[in-house]
Amino acid sequence: MTAVKDSVHDYISLDPVAADLVDTPEFQRLRHIKQLSTVRLVYPSANHTRFEHSLGVYHLASRALSHLGIDGDRAAHVRAAALLHDIGHGPYGHQTEDLIRRRTGRDHDEIDDLLGNSVAGEVLESHGLDPARVADLVDGNAGLGQLVSGELDADRMDYLVRDAHHTGVPYGTIDHGRLIRELRYREGNLVLAEGNVQTAESLLLARALMNAIVYRHHVSRIAGAMLERASERLVEDGLPIEEFARMADHDLLVALRERVPELGERIERRNLYKRAVWAPLEVVPADVVELTHAETRAAEREIADIADVAPKSVLVDVPPRPGIKESRSRVVVNGVVQRLEETSELVGALRSTERTQWRLGVYAPDDVRDEVAAAAADVFDLSPHGIDRWTVL
Amino acid sequence: MTAVKDSVHDYISLDPVAADLVDTPEFQRLRHIKQLSTVRLVYPSANHTRFEHSLGVYHLASRALSHLGIDGDRAAHVRAAALLHDIGHGPYGHQTEDLIRRRTGRDHDEIDDLLGNSVAGEVLESHGLDPARVADLVDGNAGLGQLVSGELDADRMDYLVRDAHHTGVPYGTIDHGRLIRELRYREGNLVLAEGNVQTAESLLLARALMNAIVYRHHVSRIAGAMLERASERLVEDGLPIEEFARMADHDLLVALRERVPELGERIERRNLYKRAVWAPLEVVPADVVELTHAETRAAEREIADIADVAPKSVLVDVPPRPGIKESRSRVVVNGVVQRLEETSELVGALRSTERTQWRLGVYAPDDVRDEVAAAAADVFDLSPHGIDRWTVL
Amino acid sequence: MTAVKDSVHDYISLDPVAADLVDTPEFQRLRHIKQLSTVRLVYPSANHTRFEHSLGVYHLASRALSHLGIDGDRAAHVRAAALLHDIGHGPYGHQTEDLIRRRTGRDHDEIDDLLGNSVAGEVLESHGLDPARVADLVDGNAGLGQLVSGELDADRMDYLVRDAHHTGVPYGTIDHGRLIRELRYREGNLVLAEGNVQTAESLLLARALMNAIVYRHHVSRIAGAMLERASERLVEDGLPIEEFARMADHDLLVALRERVPELGERIERRNLYKRAVWAPLEVVPADVVELTHAETRAAEREIADIADVAPKSVLVDVPPRPGIKESRSRVVVNGVVQRLEETSELVGALRSTERTQWRLGVYAPDDVRDEVAAAAADVFDLSPHGIDRWTVL
Amino acid sequence: MTAVKDSVHDYISLDPVAADLVDTPEFQRLRHIKQLSTVRLVYPSANHTRFEHSLGVYHLASRALSHLGIDGDRAAHVRAAALLHDIGHGPYGHQTEDLIRRRTGRDHDEIDDLLGNSVAGEVLESHGLDPARVADLVDGNAGLGQLVSGELDADRMDYLVRDAHHTGVPYGTIDHGRLIRELRYREGNLVLAEGNVQTAESLLLARALMNAIVYRHHVSRIAGAMLERASERLVEDGLPIEEFARMADHDLLVALRERVPELGERIERRNLYKRAVWAPLEVVPADVVELTHAETRAAEREIADIADVAPKSVLVDVPPRPGIKESRSRVVVNGVVQRLEETSELVGALRSTERTQWRLGVYAPDDVRDEVAAAAADVFDLSPHGIDRWTVL
Repeated sequence: MTAVKDSVHDYISLDPVAADLVDTPEFQRLRHIKQLSTVRLVYPSANHTRFEHSLGVYHLASRALSHLGIDGDRAAHVRAAALLHDIGHGPYGHQTEDLIRRRTGRDHDEIDDLLGNSVAGEVLESHGLDPARVADLVDGNAGLGQLVSGELDADRMDYLVRDAHHTGVPYGTIDHGRLIRELRYREGNLVLAEGNVQTAESLLLARALMNAIVYRHHVSRIAGAMLERASERLVEDGLPIEEFARMADHDLLVALRERVPELGERIERRNLYKRAVWAPLEVVPADVVELTHAETRAAEREIADIADVAPKSVLVDVPPRPGIKESRSRVVVNGVVQRLEETSELVGALRSTERTQWRLGVYAPDDVRDEVAAAAADVFDLSPHGIDRWTVL
Repeated sequence: MTAVKDSVHDYISLDPVAADLVDTPEFQRLRHIKQLSTVRLVYPSANHTRFEHSLGVYHLASRALSHLGIDGDRAAHVRAAALLHDIGHGPYGHQTEDLIRRRTGRDHDEIDDLLGNSVAGEVLESHGLDPARVADLVDGNAGLGQLVSGELDADRMDYLVRDAHHTGVPYGTIDHGRLIRELRYREGNLVLAEGNVQTAESLLLARALMNAIVYRHHVSRIAGAMLERASERLVEDGLPIEEFARMADHDLLVALRERVPELGERIERRNLYKRAVWAPLEVVPADVVELTHAETRAAEREIADIADVAPKSVLVDVPPRPGIKESRSRVVVNGVVQRLEETSELVGALRSTERTQWRLGVYAPDDVRDEVAAAAADVFDLSPHGIDRWTVL
Repeated sequence: MTAVKDSVHDYISLDPVAADLVDTPEFQRLRHIKQLSTVRLVYPSANHTRFEHSLGVYHLASRALSHLGIDGDRAAHVRAAALLHDIGHGPYGHQTEDLIRRRTGRDHDEIDDLLGNSVAGEVLESHGLDPARVADLVDGNAGLGQLVSGELDADRMDYLVRDAHHTGVPYGTIDHGRLIRELRYREGNLVLAEGNVQTAESLLLARALMNAIVYRHHVSRIAGAMLERASERLVEDGLPIEEFARMADHDLLVALRERVPELGERIERRNLYKRAVWAPLEVVPADVVELTHAETRAAEREIADIADVAPKSVLVDVPPRPGIKESRSRVVVNGVVQRLEETSELVGALRSTERTQWRLGVYAPDDVRDEVAAAAADVFDLSPHGIDRWTVL
Repeated sequence: MTAVKDSVHDYISLDPVAADLVDTPEFQRLRHIKQLSTVRLVYPSANHTRFEHSLGVYHLASRALSHLGIDGDRAAHVRAAALLHDIGHGPYGHQTEDLIRRRTGRDHDEIDDLLGNSVAGEVLESHGLDPARVADLVDGNAGLGQLVSGELDADRMDYLVRDAHHTGVPYGTIDHGRLIRELRYREGNLVLAEGNVQTAESLLLARALMNAIVYRHHVSRIAGAMLERASERLVEDGLPIEEFARMADHDLLVALRERVPELGERIERRNLYKRAVWAPLEVVPADVVELTHAETRAAEREIADIADVAPKSVLVDVPPRPGIKESRSRVVVNGVVQRLEETSELVGALRSTERTQWRLGVYAPDDVRDEVAAAAADVFDLSPHGIDRWTVL
């Protein structure tokens, strides 16, 4: 068996299908897509890629399947899905997901297309595997697909530990050995065995702390918003969305610097916008929280207009309402399968915490920050008595 | 400067006072007291001692003092207190604390006596330090003593990380670098700077997970109850409590085997009692939860009587009502110092979780477990409809 | 499958034989024997035991067997031997080996006796395994016994990594994943596959650095010599050697303090003798290097006599001539199985290095060090021009 | 003080000069230059960059200076040099060094130019530091410059540990805590204090093992040779060398794909040439070992001609004769400063080992490998009886 040395899981053995899939251009491209996109601008050691992450997910899924006693054809499809689950990502991963969806009108089914028309698809077929079935497992969140994408999936187990290893922030270091040992497959669902409410909670807590300290760090959010907007301009400027979607990070970085220099150069050199507004949920009117993409753009223009600055100097960043996927993981309590949220008081508390941490961001170059802050407060009707809670001193 | 190599903090530099204190018999005794007493019967790598833990607390307290810009005489006393904070412990640490207190009638002031009449006390004086002031800092929970014993103390920061390193359970691995960097000293209290609600919560969460998975593991609780009872018999059998209190683990282990063999040999060979009852709070009458030590012993005799087994075959283990010390740590929120429990929704949830995890334990040799379970249900009037929730199958 | 959490290898799964063996008194006793005996007096975190080490050796041997495709009865015997390989050790492991051998006249065959008359032996038989065959594998250094005790054995792989983890000295951290993947079993011998001269060398280098920095640290050697001498007096004083051999560390520590207090109390409180002489090979006459045990004792008396100090105040410590077992490990080079020493120039250099590091030690209480140094130089005829090379300033 | 979280050293505190230097375009560019260039094609987690490495070198140099008691202006210049030591690197670091030197005719003095004409230079001056003095310290290998570039420099200490962390190969994990504690500054040279021959050797051994297992892995060498040749063609094709030298990795990767696709696409997709020849020193005529760059190119054309393949299908890779810089590190032995090679037998052995590992490589696309191997054997007059030692089966 071929093996790859990994800094997180040590040697990862590849079955023959995986060994061939790794050599395809679709998979090799993942070498050039960072796992944490703009987080590296805050945590400079976080340069790990979707390539090694995908190997890690494959590794943990393989171990889980072997622990569950599942093998043969079924297991082979799940392992392939685990390995390939990220090949549909655009450059800079989640950061360009929305843009690609809006422009292509596709929702998630990219992986189907990709496996239907790619070297990876051919490799699957040459080993007697069905690309469509693999694609379903990636999309699915059903049956064994839950091991690839579900509340207790190998994706989450790998990225939490890997992101901790590379950022240096320890909170993602979950006990995946235990999670896998305690997995059961009951009536078509992955569940944790009796006595594992804490095991399930540990996953939730690790995510919550990594969200707060790493994934949603304001510097990463600012850079992310700049990258998104710059990408949008690139596409508006004529770059076909299909071509855009198949870029890797380095392609996008070069394209942005050359074709959208006002943002591209800043991203490359970490010369970032600053927070003009950073407002918690209680001072933001409900309609602002629900702004559509088009309305956000319109608001930016309005703010720029009032502040009398160039339109491209204002970025409005409205995150989605918070939710916690892991809260629906299944665990056996007193012999009955329950959703974690039904049995753990922590779930509710973490939901509140997520709400507490939600922030509306408005970003601008340092020298026009004050004007933009004032204009945004005006446009968004931010509660004036909360003024000291949302401006950044 | 002398330095000691530590597996957790790498090199720990010792100032001249510390270097001399380390050589005293009082401190060297800590080499023979395990940090986690009976937890090693569950996690066999957890053999670390109060000796290295005390060096770790000294190290983190020194770094915190230097970060806070506190030096001179004040800092010297705090560093000494950090180093010596555990020298008052009896054998097997917390496991024998209650027994020693009941028998000596002392509450915590042992450290005073110890520093007043010991080589360590002489060493302090020879360096111009005041043993009484050091003792106050250990006891204190006030002013800079909070660094030794408080909600944000170096003790907690060290043991969480160290216990994680040695058990292999990752959840204690907090970010002490960040905790120390964000410490401030305001109006006589240690607080965390603005923007650190999560930092404070991370300490709480680490403790909660380590409690559930490590510190209160049922096997460790059974062995702990056996050890406590055996120690009690040893003292009842004539061993002076002062002599008992100055034993180290190896002394106690030998003494128990020789003088209380029915329990001592079992502890040494990990031939433990089993759970006859393991009942959550909701099936246990309120008066049982509040049993005094004497009432617990009486209940054991009554259960043994009904079950018709030898009195020493029944151990009743009623843990205290749960509480979360870290919930009162101070953190600056919007410019105002707040208690964590006032600002974090997690605190309430963790309190509920602690309640959910509380268990009344009744332990007995494997061969009389059923009889003891039935008798205990009778004596304690355990809710019959909850029968399947408290017997262990 | 039962599993144990280990701080080095994470979860270790136990087969049914191993699970039963772990519960025997012979194996539980290993909880009370430290892996590195007196090294903990230098590296205070090094409190790990032969219990967890034995589990680790079992784990690595199991993985190697599975990698080599060896299963069934043969593998079962090797796994049992790996788990039990240390149960014959006396208290403080290697430190009391010589004493036990001299007194019992036995050489290595202890494990036979032990497995013939023990609960562990019964457990083996109850699972259809042959205790004598297991004992042979522990002693053997032949065939698959090489996995338990050989140049490329699981014992070495585990202890290097484990000692590094617990001392904090990184040099033992070898790549056991690679060592195991590259193992082959050819004509009754374990060999490393083509292209692995460096893999073999890495084992050698790790041992050499750990020898110099950890295993032979002078403070550990002094404490070891004190312990050995104290044990000798204990046995001379009437403790039956069979009883001595079955003690664990805590028993010995208590017995020494009570019955050989002049050394026992010092060991317990780390109040150690100091180096009076620390002489390299080139200043020590050849006959001194070859002193027998009886001659060493006679020399101590002579030195004490000349120095006019109590006889028990002089300890002479003559280590064996250095050798490097790993140098004979087998590796395939250009298709031919070779001994590492035939193909690696490092082996010769490391042999020289070991010679360079060899030291004759004479130890004494601090206050009589000078007198003892002078007398020892006289008795041993230490080269006078080398005077500044062997006294410790 | 500003601090950056690092996965290797945890928090790195930045003094005000460093904080400003980090924000310059010259330093930010290092985010886009991988530390190990093509090694990531073998060890996929090795994606760390010169940015975080430079922070690490700054950190270790700061600690060493503080340990040596050196501060003020002198220390400030050394710290700045440690931080900036890599800003002169071209894309893909060492891989393009030769090309840049040949084309610009410069040798090392790039850093002078850079600091003379850059934002980083201005920042230095604004803080009262002298850019020329900083440049000298980077180049120097003299005085305190030895801390930046010398046998015991912070550069080496950081990269060994960091490369181990990111590749997963443990052998680079040296004990930098000890190295720094044992540093002394004597008569203008960095030396290790008495008793540290092993400490010095450990550095040597770590490098030797990392060389064999990581840095000179054949897959990395093949990709490196492809990258070098492709870069050469890019420059021959008209890209000004000054522009080339200021590229970052992503720029080069895009440029190669677009302008030298026959190699660029292969590098990006890890579709690499294979070894046609891999010959040890003893089968390679001495004049081949000494081939100049121009002669190497001529040999490639000759081989291609004989093999009847396209000229670009042959890559000849002649590494320099091996040497070991660390062998000249200084260490105090018996009170006298000595070079390590004068006192350690390991140095000679490692030199031999390096010679043993030297390989002449000739690489070609898989489908013409045999023809190229035969032609190369002919052109280079490779010893025919060694045939089975240099072809790769």
